[in-house]
Amino acid sequence: MVETIVWKDNQVVMIDQRKLPLQEKYIICKDYRSVIRAIKNLVIRGAPAIGVAAAMGVALGALKIRTSNKERFRAKLDAICRDIVQARPTAANLAWAVERMKQVADQASRRGVKGVKSRLVKEAQKMLDEDIAINRRMGRYGQRLLRNGSRVLTHCNAGALATGGYGTALGVVRAAVKAGKRIEVFADETRPFLQGARLTAWEMKELNIPVTVITDNSAGYFMQQGRVDAVIVGADRIAENGDVANKIGTYMVAVLAKTHKIPFYVAAPLSTIDASIKSGKEIPIEQRGEKEVTRFLGRQATPNGVPAENPAFDVTPHRYISAIITEKGVITPPFKAKIRRLFASG
Amino acid sequence: MVETIVWKDNQVVMIDQRKLPLQEKYIICKDYRSVIRAIKNLVIRGAPAIGVAAAMGVALGALKIRTSNKERFRAKLDAICRDIVQARPTAANLAWAVERMKQVADQASRRGVKGVKSRLVKEAQKMLDEDIAINRRMGRYGQRLLRNGSRVLTHCNAGALATGGYGTALGVVRAAVKAGKRIEVFADETRPFLQGARLTAWEMKELNIPVTVITDNSAGYFMQQGRVDAVIVGADRIAENGDVANKIGTYMVAVLAKTHKIPFYVAAPLSTIDASIKSGKEIPIEQRGEKEVTRFLGRQATPNGVPAENPAFDVTPHRYISAIITEKGVITPPFKAKIRRLFASG
Repeated sequence: MVETIVWKDNQVVMIDQRKLPLQEKYIICKDYRSVIRAIKNLVIRGAPAIGVAAAMGVALGALKIRTSNKERFRAKLDAICRDIVQARPTAANLAWAVERMKQVADQASRRGVKGVKSRLVKEAQKMLDEDIAINRRMGRYGQRLLRNGSRVLTHCNAGALATGGYGTALGVVRAAVKAGKRIEVFADETRPFLQGARLTAWEMKELNIPVTVITDNSAGYFMQQGRVDAVIVGADRIAENGDVANKIGTYMVAVLAKTHKIPFYVAAPLSTIDASIKSGKEIPIEQRGEKEVTRFLGRQATPNGVPAENPAFDVTPHRYISAIITEKGVITPPFKAKIRRLFASG
Repeated sequence: MVETIVWKDNQVVMIDQRKLPLQEKYIICKDYRSVIRAIKNLVIRGAPAIGVAAAMGVALGALKIRTSNKERFRAKLDAICRDIVQARPTAANLAWAVERMKQVADQASRRGVKGVKSRLVKEAQKMLDEDIAINRRMGRYGQRLLRNGSRVLTHCNAGALATGGYGTALGVVRAAVKAGKRIEVFADETRPFLQGARLTAWEMKELNIPVTVITDNSAGYFMQQGRVDAVIVGADRIAENGDVANKIGTYMVAVLAKTHKIPFYVAAPLSTIDASIKSGKEIPIEQRGEKEVTRFLGRQATPNGVPAENPAFDVTPHRYISAIITEKGVITPPFKAKIRRLFASG
């Protein structure tokens, strides 16, 4: 499988997720502004992957700061961090990654500008490695929730491409397969950006895990037919009470799952949990441009002059969520106290 | 507004709904087989429109039968009717229209082959006119359900293009606007065929009724935000108990509407009600080719070799339906006895 993002020769290389699966093209980011552009334009997407990209963006930005004065360096670094945090508003991992990089800069400040730069570059790469390791741990915990023969519906792409590698929701599927279970995946196509039809389908095919693409409209039909045993999705931000912001349409799938008494699981690293906010109501929902809706792979669908709205995420209230799978284990409702405990445990 | 289907010079002319809204092209059907092809290929769609097309197909087929022998004529006509009924399985109006044409042939049989042919041609045109009149009546009854300022979500296209003209669900919206109410429409884009993004958006724009296109994934979000006051959809077949088969994704919208305590209305003529079946479980759901899912306006989205499933309709159980709007008035639950009464009243 291709790598989602790598640090190479002081550049950041990403596979262009807008072009997959029909083209495997790479984008090379030579400065932090092109990392921001790549995040905004969905070259790279998925909360954990955005976190890694943000960290690498900070490192890239730091490398290019031309001063050996510690204070001036730090002021410029902070400005870069502010820009990167604003690339997209919903994913918690973006601010989390940037904050972590700032703390590393704090800790290394006695080493001088050069020392800080080198620590930031190392930390960004470490965050990539950690993310993959975290996903694998999540997979091992989460796969216990799936039986042999489980038919799993997923929405959007929470796979290797949405993370440093391996995947959150799809990592759970991979771990179940690795544990010897036969798993079949239904991939909601996930309009408007088609992460399901393009990316989840592609990842599952590469891994030889049986996958069937369906329109977002069909999820209810397949549940009605008794053909879905579990739903697993990723998350962009989780509030302290367990409310989950994730790709637009997730809420709909969650409501349908509850109606059909199908378990609805969210797989996400602790870095996606924003314990500073009480509920999903506080999560900012990105509104993207209408052309993603009015066009499809470049072809116009709607009449000229008709507006579209394009909320990129929605919030699934915690009462719809059967369990949250993290790298420290699986938590079930009520989430609030358990989320606090996860953070307290280190 | 363009006409959906017309009988002209012993030919059937349809606007090609696959090309709208960017191109206004017409298909001319010179024989009944090309009418069947047009129905199968979605040149024309929408249960009432398919009913009219089927009737015109029967008339066209009858005209081309080269015999003056009454029995041989009738045998050939019955074979044509069998072919037409099989064009698509879900819409009740198809079988209803063909059955009505057969009854007309029965009644006119004493007039000889030529007389029957001329009666069939007249009946098909009458059914078109009747359908438009029925839609207008439905609109007048249904519009009372909408308030001034109502924001109405609709799925698929149940407008002039789905009928002989005027529309069922969109007819209700039009009638409300005509009655002086300010109505805003949210059009679900309705993958895979995009009837919402292409056809509903186009009709509303032509009529100067404010419309916003959203992805099917967004319906829940807008309900959560309190931005939807009512849902109105059409129907392809309604069972005796009020279960409604309609475009895939309708069930999902209905479940969301119930969750948000938003009224969910179905507008359909009596010809869509199949009183011969007890519940939606008996309604055959058409499974269409996977290319409608894997491609979009001709552009491939999915990786080669990944399968897709494409159920074209789903069934919304009657408990999700607040009211059914017919040309004989609006009925509310429990539907079964009221549906029987509607039919009994002639």
